[in-house]
Amino acid sequence: MARKTKTSSDRPTLVDVAREAGVSAITVSRTIRSPGIVSDKARRKVEEAIRRLGYTPDPAASALASRSTSTIGLLVPSLTNNVFSDVLRGVYEGVQGTRYFVQIGNYRYSALEEEGLIRNFLSQRPAGLIVSSMDQTPTGRRLLETAPCPVVQIMEIAEGAVDMSVGFDQLAAVRAGAQHLQECGYRRPGFLSARMDPRAQRRLAAFREFAEGAGMLDDRRIITTPQPSSVGMGGHLLEQLLSQAPDTDAVMCNNDDLAVGALMEALRRHIAVPGQLGICSYNDIEMARHMVPALTAVATPRREIGSRAIAMLLAEIDNPGSVTERRVDLGFEMMIRESTSRR
Amino acid sequence: MARKTKTSSDRPTLVDVAREAGVSAITVSRTIRSPGIVSDKARRKVEEAIRRLGYTPDPAASALASRSTSTIGLLVPSLTNNVFSDVLRGVYEGVQGTRYFVQIGNYRYSALEEEGLIRNFLSQRPAGLIVSSMDQTPTGRRLLETAPCPVVQIMEIAEGAVDMSVGFDQLAAVRAGAQHLQECGYRRPGFLSARMDPRAQRRLAAFREFAEGAGMLDDRRIITTPQPSSVGMGGHLLEQLLSQAPDTDAVMCNNDDLAVGALMEALRRHIAVPGQLGICSYNDIEMARHMVPALTAVATPRREIGSRAIAMLLAEIDNPGSVTERRVDLGFEMMIRESTSRR
Repeated sequence: MARKTKTSSDRPTLVDVAREAGVSAITVSRTIRSPGIVSDKARRKVEEAIRRLGYTPDPAASALASRSTSTIGLLVPSLTNNVFSDVLRGVYEGVQGTRYFVQIGNYRYSALEEEGLIRNFLSQRPAGLIVSSMDQTPTGRRLLETAPCPVVQIMEIAEGAVDMSVGFDQLAAVRAGAQHLQECGYRRPGFLSARMDPRAQRRLAAFREFAEGAGMLDDRRIITTPQPSSVGMGGHLLEQLLSQAPDTDAVMCNNDDLAVGALMEALRRHIAVPGQLGICSYNDIEMARHMVPALTAVATPRREIGSRAIAMLLAEIDNPGSVTERRVDLGFEMMIRESTSRR
Repeated sequence: MARKTKTSSDRPTLVDVAREAGVSAITVSRTIRSPGIVSDKARRKVEEAIRRLGYTPDPAASALASRSTSTIGLLVPSLTNNVFSDVLRGVYEGVQGTRYFVQIGNYRYSALEEEGLIRNFLSQRPAGLIVSSMDQTPTGRRLLETAPCPVVQIMEIAEGAVDMSVGFDQLAAVRAGAQHLQECGYRRPGFLSARMDPRAQRRLAAFREFAEGAGMLDDRRIITTPQPSSVGMGGHLLEQLLSQAPDTDAVMCNNDDLAVGALMEALRRHIAVPGQLGICSYNDIEMARHMVPALTAVATPRREIGSRAIAMLLAEIDNPGSVTERRVDLGFEMMIRESTSRR
């Protein structure tokens, strides 16, 4: 695959200009393409750096930038549970009736695959990109920063997004679930998590922190696996939890597949839910509320994330710089149902 | 978007040649690109038609054909249940370590959206396409027939595939499920189905036909909705079935989401499964076997379809005409578990 390493040693690139000016590459790109949307201060810095380095925009790259297609690229880490299909639903609703088509790349929780897909998508000159993580490789991140199209990062609210972002506070959401268990009167809660991608790890850390603060942390009750998440895995993890710490009285599950699996395992063992064991799920995909008993869950705003992300992206494609709120927090909601109860 | 309508009135196209020669457009395309893989008889017909019509290949189209990218396009009707993510898993396993990237288009059970996506993908010169249906619009079908890349149609075994196909006999699979219910001794089986896309309709027809032949057909027990399938919908449909025909003793569900929903509704109503009500699911996605009771299901070879389809596609990209078995039937399997039992 053609890489730019050779070119960058020959002549200054946009990234060199950004470094020299002390601004982000996207600011340089904007200063060149639409100076009106950049602050006077940043514009002056960039113009000076361009003069100092003798930078000229790569004509091929400029041509590329102006020939965007009707493709919106959407990168997701997984399609094996309904979390991202709910995001997709929101995206599709927003794209309906426009001239754009959505193409999906699934990087299966591999930052290297994500980097490859970012490159692959960019080679097709997409009109815009939606990416589902903050955890790119350095190269992946640089590709996004210098992308000749708007980029929205979704799912999390974090410092340091490449440009626009829409999500919610994943850590506060986990804490809300753990706090609900505490408020119900459960005192020995466990935590089940699979896959252990960076986001799953951050959520586990938030649970630990909350449990520690509440005097309820017991490491025997934290059960994780690097294997993929599934309903069957939820059953296995609960089995392991109960063999290590049989007096566990509640469990927070890092997604709905695990929670459904834990619930089925409890049914199989004739453990009363919520009486003997409270279960709190995370995400709240459609099936969670239809279980018997219905699962209490932290509901994450997946569909809203999709529709807001595509709205921001289309507005920005149409009129660069027109999106004023570039970091959107959509919140989350505690859905208290039958799988937890006050004791 | 640039359409070829003008050109086709001006000069003969590949499709005109195909019509004149009485062969498929893909045969014409192959005769031009790799005459060695076409039968002598077909080659002669095509060559005569080309002479009669004065056809010359469109140079732009030829250029297009030779500049394929490293993108494999995969069109699916849905990502809201795990059926197609299992297909994807097989595809990804086959692509791993190659130079290809998979991009997914979701046409959400709309043949018109599918047509748009086929056009959108083809404009990016993919190395190959995998499409999940046989039910294209006439234009969508023509686009596939004249695509300058190999095409595999997946999920069904049907006459009249555009080129390569891999799947299984969906109608025999439904009949196997219905026959299992009959062999268990259930005599008043119902059928639940949502969405009612063409494939779902064909499966329902196969169930009706079997039930009629077995003297068990009762139209009050056939419950369908055009709304999307979901776990909640499975509960609603069972509710409707039992209010219309309370003596129903078994139910065949057109997919696993509906079966899980029906099972939960039965639990909620304290209907014993399998004693009072047998449940047979279709597809057998991962969660089905982890329900309590575990769901009996017709297991469809989704992952195998994905891996076989990508293997055929990569072989054909590498070496056109090298795939000799161009229509592959992978069969299905009855997974007999706890939700049905001999009476």
